[in-house]
Amino acid sequence: MKKIAQLLAAGLALTVLAGTASAQVIGKMEDQVRWRQSAYHTMAWSMNRIKANVEGTYNKDQVIEAANVIQAIANSKMGPNLFAAGSDKGKGWKETRVKSELFSDKEGVGKVAGPYVKEANELAKVAATGDAAAVKAQFGKLNDACKGCHEKFRKDE
Amino acid sequence: MKKIAQLLAAGLALTVLAGTASAQVIGKMEDQVRWRQSAYHTMAWSMNRIKANVEGTYNKDQVIEAANVIQAIANSKMGPNLFAAGSDKGKGWKETRVKSELFSDKEGVGKVAGPYVKEANELAKVAATGDAAAVKAQFGKLNDACKGCHEKFRKDE
Repeated sequence: MKKIAQLLAAGLALTVLAGTASAQVIGKMEDQVRWRQSAYHTMAWSMNRIKANVEGTYNKDQVIEAANVIQAIANSKMGPNLFAAGSDKGKGWKETRVKSELFSDKEGVGKVAGPYVKEANELAKVAATGDAAAVKAQFGKLNDACKGCHEKFRKDE
Repeated sequence: MKKIAQLLAAGLALTVLAGTASAQVIGKMEDQVRWRQSAYHTMAWSMNRIKANVEGTYNKDQVIEAANVIQAIANSKMGPNLFAAGSDKGKGWKETRVKSELFSDKEGVGKVAGPYVKEANELAKVAATGDAAAVKAQFGKLNDACKGCHEKFRKDE
């Protein structure tokens, strides 16, 4: 019975990390690390685009374009798809900065991953309205959600 | 008069490259090169996700996720935003592979950029239907559009 319980727990943990049956791991480990580094940097570009808008001259189209990129990537299930077991070590464009805790602390991952997807979806919605003040506020919320994960699961450079 | 005509032509060329007034160049040159390399690799990941689906077991959600990422990036105006004059040289994650012709052959750029955005938008539409055969056909069209630019404006590795 103890063994069955352990197996069930392990299965549950895998399910939490994988999300659903639609998890799709492709490519070699170095591809996965490079792809996830690329996706985060594409989001960083987009966050910088929005920052320049909310701190400078506001252009609705630019913000929509950038928010849509962030939303699409946030909904692409990078967690299960690009963080396969063992990818806490490895080099894509550079050595991965992910902490090994990301692969063990399922509860902690859920606490930071959920808000990130939620705030990214909300930002795309708010961007579509063109309300600069609302975008600024929502951008701050998404930024905080990003930081929540970085502080917990990303090594300093 | 000749000088005015030249200035007008130069202005037109810039407009063609920039698309509209919403072009937004931010970051240092090395940031721009790294961001565009990241965006292309994020699309490469997504194209590989779709390829695995149309050649293997088809999962509607996976294809939608990946097609949405490609669509959002294709509509983010990378041309005017991440290919500023002078960025035919430079290192992001690695040396840029862009040919200098991309910055001079406006007509040629238009011929490859238009189909890429069009086929990316169409792929997202088709993905939403879940019709595997239609996705396979549209994936081929987008792949051809990508290659059209690579063959003309990207150096071999």
